Amino acid sequence: MSAPPVSALRNLACARCSREEDADRLQTLCPCGGTYLARYDLETARRTLHRTSLAEREPGVWRWAEILPVREASRRRGLGEGGTPLLRGEGLGRRLGLSRLWLKDEGRNPGGSFKAQGMAVALARNVELGASRFALPSAGNAGGAASAYGAYWGVDVHVSLPRATPDAFRREVAAHNARGYDVDGDIATAGAWLAARPEAHNWFFLSTLKEPYRAEGKKTMGLELVEQLGWRWPSVIVYPTGGGTGIVGMVKADAELRELGLLEGPPPRFVVVQAEGCAPLVKAFEEGAVRASPWPDPQTEANGLRVPGSVADDLILDALRRTGGTAVRVSDSDMDDARGWAARDEGIYLAPEAAATVAAAERLKRDGWLHAEDEVVLFLTGNGFKYPMKERRR
Amino acid sequence: MSAPPVSALRNLACARCSREEDADRLQTLCPCGGTYLARYDLETARRTLHRTSLAEREPGVWRWAEILPVREASRRRGLGEGGTPLLRGEGLGRRLGLSRLWLKDEGRNPGGSFKAQGMAVALARNVELGASRFALPSAGNAGGAASAYGAYWGVDVHVSLPRATPDAFRREVAAHNARGYDVDGDIATAGAWLAARPEAHNWFFLSTLKEPYRAEGKKTMGLELVEQLGWRWPSVIVYPTGGGTGIVGMVKADAELRELGLLEGPPPRFVVVQAEGCAPLVKAFEEGAVRASPWPDPQTEANGLRVPGSVADDLILDALRRTGGTAVRVSDSDMDDARGWAARDEGIYLAPEAAATVAAAERLKRDGWLHAEDEVVLFLTGNGFKYPMKERRR
Repeated sequence: MSAPPVSALRNLACARCSREEDADRLQTLCPCGGTYLARYDLETARRTLHRTSLAEREPGVWRWAEILPVREASRRRGLGEGGTPLLRGEGLGRRLGLSRLWLKDEGRNPGGSFKAQGMAVALARNVELGASRFALPSAGNAGGAASAYGAYWGVDVHVSLPRATPDAFRREVAAHNARGYDVDGDIATAGAWLAARPEAHNWFFLSTLKEPYRAEGKKTMGLELVEQLGWRWPSVIVYPTGGGTGIVGMVKADAELRELGLLEGPPPRFVVVQAEGCAPLVKAFEEGAVRASPWPDPQTEANGLRVPGSVADDLILDALRRTGGTAVRVSDSDMDDARGWAARDEGIYLAPEAAATVAAAERLKRDGWLHAEDEVVLFLTGNGFKYPMKERRR
Repeated sequence: MSAPPVSALRNLACARCSREEDADRLQTLCPCGGTYLARYDLETARRTLHRTSLAEREPGVWRWAEILPVREASRRRGLGEGGTPLLRGEGLGRRLGLSRLWLKDEGRNPGGSFKAQGMAVALARNVELGASRFALPSAGNAGGAASAYGAYWGVDVHVSLPRATPDAFRREVAAHNARGYDVDGDIATAGAWLAARPEAHNWFFLSTLKEPYRAEGKKTMGLELVEQLGWRWPSVIVYPTGGGTGIVGMVKADAELRELGLLEGPPPRFVVVQAEGCAPLVKAFEEGAVRASPWPDPQTEANGLRVPGSVADDLILDALRRTGGTAVRVSDSDMDDARGWAARDEGIYLAPEAAATVAAAERLKRDGWLHAEDEVVLFLTGNGFKYPMKERRR
């Protein structure tokens, strides 16, 4: 038995202006509007975080304790988040003409989506720092996850949901005893509405990339993928992108794993997938812009992609360009088709956002951007059980 | 690297009359009406199946290859079934007054329920033996799982569902390109209807305990629990029981792990949980009967418990009595309350069948059958996303 691991968290640094801040107090956005990211003393971390110690640890988010922000060991717990399987996608690979396709099945998390890892870490850490009343606008899964971890830690959670959100999400929030608010408009409107509530000054906001720690939880998706592939990245990662914490987290995973001596080879080419009716990052990427403009009237049935803008647009666009990646838009009808392929060819029941990665891979293969022998990982960010699927009869 | 493991499957033996059969041909029920169970050469298995070899294997069902029936290594795969977390139930433990409560979260399987493990093994093995057209009646989750693995293996699946089954299950079956049939009545009626179809002679039936291999998949729930607890059982296992494959599987896990030298200490006391409106095993247990009579008019909103009879009633009743266990009935309204407790006290969103174990533990604690310091594992057999939960507003 080794000594219990210790978090090597050092401080926070703004991703835009590099301003440093104390990580042991509750922090939100940098005054410049940039996102604070957690920085670790990786020289210390690598003394106890290595292949040998990892082999003895449980699967899931908390095995990365040294490079997670939670200080007290007794608070590194939750609902068994992370540790999701990396599946060989042979059935879908045959359909798409990709012989080395992998599926990272994030729908196997608590609550059925990849929002679990980020919320598990954000709640554990911000509760550790003294917060007890949380709020966020959500397209659905983030609100469900925040509500579940709020129940787990016994703290208050307030979630504003665009009125178009399917009822399953609203029921999930209510079941966990969180307070849900239906708001006309999109997630940006719902966020503004929540921030304007008179009680809002009592709430700690968990909105995407407006506090430092959801990204730390998301980062573990990258750490886990690299470990599952034998300490290397695949050639390409296809990722459905709303707020974009996942890409920010994976870029961070890349940098930290290299400094820890746990990663060799090039980074993956990142592919951002958005919906035709809401594609601010795709538009900015195509136009060669450094920042993305908010999408005026976001329209898609994939709630998680109905996000008009990202706080980390610059970080994401930079990651696409540095890695030789790209950005793709797919239609709702493409997502529907792709849900069908996944269910019939592979036996996996996907949420529309997750299916968007399948549709994007099909498009990129057809256009020649992907080659048959490229090693491709699709991030299947959520299972489909909260989204009614159009019934088809055989 | 060790050599790839080999299945030590020897033959099949009827659990009722001990008749032996060839395991390398498709088999259904014994002529006596009993269930065939797989037998292994455990002396051979223990040479390669031990703590050291297990430490190097991936989590999930297939790590137990030597004591699974699938012979070809290339067929030991699926959707990442099993390997579900064993959670400390501190929140629910406080509510129930149980200081050593564990939650085995089987809702984290592919498709969101514990039906995955059984169907993964049954499909892999029966396809290996040449079957290509499958059929079963289902209360919902088993049909969904059979359909998903049917899609995975590219074989036909026919599922009859009682008309009262929630739509989410019907959509799941259709999405996986299986053929669903709505039948008036309960799961027994649905089974009889399916067996009477003219095409039925072409179908291999996967009905609970009518073929040998679903129980082998279910068995891994027990193997996994024992491994997670450090090679011992808890004092008590609370299990929601429809057809009862799970208990049969866990009894088998107990016997095999002992012969493999992987288990010490007493077996757990098994607690069967059924619904007030459908409690054939509870009634038989209370009456001291060796067999259970079919429940005349099964009524409960927990589909998985709306099962009027079990093929393995004698095996289950015997397990309860030998281990000093018991059988409990809970009402639908108790299950609703327990879903609320799990969602609010623990952050877990449960299916009614899973919540039935929480309600049963509450009852047994109140009645003095469970003591505060008993180590209790609740099998949370499915997540709640396919079952609309009554919305409550705070």
